[in-house]
Amino acid sequence: MTAQLDPYFKQVDTLSDHFIDRLRKAVAIPSVSADDERRPDVVKMGEFLASELKNLGAEVHLRPLGKQPHKEHLDLPPVVIARYGNDKNKRTILVYGHYDVQPALKEDGWATEPFNLTIDDKGRMYGRGATDDKGPVLGWLNAIEAHQKSGVDFPVNLLMCFEGMEEYGSEGLDDFIYAEAKKFFADADAVCISDNYWLGTEKPCLTYGLRGCNYYSIEISGPGQDLHSGVFGGTAHEPMTDLVRVMGSLVDPSGKILIDGLDKLVAPLTEEEKSLYGDIAFTMDNLYESLGSKTGLFDDKERTLMGRWRFPSLSLHGIEGAFSAPGAKTVIPAKVIGKFSIRTVPNMEIPEVNKLVEAHVNKVFASLGSKNTCKLIEQHSGKWWVASPKHWNFTAAAKAVERVWNVKPDLTREGGSIPVTLTFEQATGKNVLLLPMGSSTDAAHSINEKLDKRNYIEGIKLLGAYLHYVAEEPMNA
Amino acid sequence: MTAQLDPYFKQVDTLSDHFIDRLRKAVAIPSVSADDERRPDVVKMGEFLASELKNLGAEVHLRPLGKQPHKEHLDLPPVVIARYGNDKNKRTILVYGHYDVQPALKEDGWATEPFNLTIDDKGRMYGRGATDDKGPVLGWLNAIEAHQKSGVDFPVNLLMCFEGMEEYGSEGLDDFIYAEAKKFFADADAVCISDNYWLGTEKPCLTYGLRGCNYYSIEISGPGQDLHSGVFGGTAHEPMTDLVRVMGSLVDPSGKILIDGLDKLVAPLTEEEKSLYGDIAFTMDNLYESLGSKTGLFDDKERTLMGRWRFPSLSLHGIEGAFSAPGAKTVIPAKVIGKFSIRTVPNMEIPEVNKLVEAHVNKVFASLGSKNTCKLIEQHSGKWWVASPKHWNFTAAAKAVERVWNVKPDLTREGGSIPVTLTFEQATGKNVLLLPMGSSTDAAHSINEKLDKRNYIEGIKLLGAYLHYVAEEPMNA
Repeated sequence: MTAQLDPYFKQVDTLSDHFIDRLRKAVAIPSVSADDERRPDVVKMGEFLASELKNLGAEVHLRPLGKQPHKEHLDLPPVVIARYGNDKNKRTILVYGHYDVQPALKEDGWATEPFNLTIDDKGRMYGRGATDDKGPVLGWLNAIEAHQKSGVDFPVNLLMCFEGMEEYGSEGLDDFIYAEAKKFFADADAVCISDNYWLGTEKPCLTYGLRGCNYYSIEISGPGQDLHSGVFGGTAHEPMTDLVRVMGSLVDPSGKILIDGLDKLVAPLTEEEKSLYGDIAFTMDNLYESLGSKTGLFDDKERTLMGRWRFPSLSLHGIEGAFSAPGAKTVIPAKVIGKFSIRTVPNMEIPEVNKLVEAHVNKVFASLGSKNTCKLIEQHSGKWWVASPKHWNFTAAAKAVERVWNVKPDLTREGGSIPVTLTFEQATGKNVLLLPMGSSTDAAHSINEKLDKRNYIEGIKLLGAYLHYVAEEPMNA
Repeated sequence: MTAQLDPYFKQVDTLSDHFIDRLRKAVAIPSVSADDERRPDVVKMGEFLASELKNLGAEVHLRPLGKQPHKEHLDLPPVVIARYGNDKNKRTILVYGHYDVQPALKEDGWATEPFNLTIDDKGRMYGRGATDDKGPVLGWLNAIEAHQKSGVDFPVNLLMCFEGMEEYGSEGLDDFIYAEAKKFFADADAVCISDNYWLGTEKPCLTYGLRGCNYYSIEISGPGQDLHSGVFGGTAHEPMTDLVRVMGSLVDPSGKILIDGLDKLVAPLTEEEKSLYGDIAFTMDNLYESLGSKTGLFDDKERTLMGRWRFPSLSLHGIEGAFSAPGAKTVIPAKVIGKFSIRTVPNMEIPEVNKLVEAHVNKVFASLGSKNTCKLIEQHSGKWWVASPKHWNFTAAAKAVERVWNVKPDLTREGGSIPVTLTFEQATGKNVLLLPMGSSTDAAHSINEKLDKRNYIEGIKLLGAYLHYVAEEPMNA
């Protein structure tokens, strides 16, 4: 069956200008979900996708999500759901992507017009949304079209779920996924999401894990209002003095978390797992380049990758309520709110982490002997996710990578979270694969976002090939 | 000679409505020095003062100070300098005040129009500048007029220096004072400034000391740009982690400064000085009321007053460059700047303090073992000031207080700084007295600023009486 890949690949190459043109049309619609004024463009982008899918013969629905929370004058953009193929003898794969983009203005520092796809002589296609996530979303549509035009049978039934609010917290999506899990998505045998990036620029990867994130505030208050440090300094307990002590007690300068008992929640590192990191295409120079400095915690790639992916970390983000402007102000802030978060990994359960953090903060604050008041607030939390990379969903994808790129993919995790991943896993009960199209230099969320033409065209081949190998894989989970 | 005070006092009472009307006219001119748009009003206020002084027979000059630094399109308002009397047999007293005010808008929360002097049934006169510092400035003019109308000989030569930029850092004034010290101000035998407040509401005070202020930034930087805590948490040295440790090492929650050697610079407390604090009209409830809480460091008034006036204190003001808005942001700030200041007292010399702070910060940062970079910046510093309260300038003022208020004044210091005080002392080499008119509840710089009618009218008596006692005091310094 995968012998049919050659004519499919050839067709993708033949249609490459057409596929780039489709991406150009999509990038030209400024579907910025964070900007209320752009909401009609977000809707227009959803309609563009729906129209393209209909033209390809898919069954398409634009599903409303109601009003936007806290902005009741705004309708949320619709979720575009679609089905291509309904053959009971084929596997059914559910794919997810998003058609909204981050804000972008030329004057932010873009070298080109952000909503005008511009290709340079190295084949870098610049434009907001090129890599995040319009390129990958169109990848699925392009794969369908190349099958049709090459006469190669589409190997699976494809279910699609494309949302328009990903860059604004995926408002309303979780409930929708849970509601459709046993309806529109009921046939799905596995899930594939193409919305992340290679670890570097040359080697593809499959991603099987994400860290979770527990976000906290420590609120310390004393005086009824801000005070003048000349008049009151030396007479009152100052909330800032207490807060920096409590924040300083959470983590040491080497990145070690100092919360009692937290390390015991972390799954022990096995020798087998440890050995995996050596092969991954990553160098310390990759780290230094993305940091813009040589201030890494570790001098070797293995501990660096483990620090990013499989161990927890604690970052202090800032303080609300204190003097934060340039210049000098002699204020004693009356109420200060320190923000920090913990990136979590297996087997750290959210309630257990919360309990340890609360106990730690209360203990440290009590030890200060301050008359001020301290309150810990759990702002939000999202769980880590780890899938089995031995599932057929992953082995199929690995074979597709080898076929298209002539290299075995790295099996990677990510340090950040993509909450929808866990939602799909929990709602459908199926294996979820993250199959990135773009590379680490694509600058998603930054100025000069781009997708390399190579990654786009070979990526279309990869998505199609993945579906063919999926169709061939023996059932193992 | 002080027998002549009775007809003077009587005349002040007779003219009280006229004096209140003069204050009303002054408050009506919104001379906000921080607001560029209001600059013509500041100038107008200076001209109003000059005109009133000329009508009283004083020699008056409006002296330009040139362009405003960093705002070259704006002229600084003029300094109003004046002389009333030129009798070589009389002492000459130099008085200072300012005719500009803090910003004020009704919508900030004022109960009345801020630039419309409004008197309630308890005699509280509300209006921006009523107590800070238009009331006291006009006090000197009113004292001249009441002498003239009562036929009582003016007991001294009066030199006046009224500036229009005090609420915006007294731009240009220091150079002016130094330049005039041996010219227009050359005859001055002593200096009197009425621009501070009683410690409470019932008992007048004379102020003989101010703390200084050394203001610092600690800048810690690492990565080339802000980082995402999901992607980089656990792989890089985080500037915030280092900064809260360094800031936490400066002062403990009981207010004790932890900088090695700093306590040795502080003049030892003598038993005699210690005994002075018991008599001062101040209660812990006064502290709690102004704090708006019971979070004082000490439970007794003596240690509280010493904490405010005669011991140094260290306050942490905030952090620039970190996340300071409400909500949750998963950022690792690339460069963070911690702000703190030390209130200094005798005998802490600015360079010695700077040296100890720098050594401390460098030592603590080095102990962290971080690859980030740490830099200490001395933002600005102003020296403490302590005058001799045994000088005739003070004994005269004390007698005037007893005569007007029937009570011995408290001898107080202040925790904050009034930099012009030290400038006058250093430029003229003469004793400087701070002789407040308003009380602790006047809300200078806040909404609903007021001056009690009693403090204004009795204050005019006090300023005049002070000049009479000055004329009688034996030469002792």
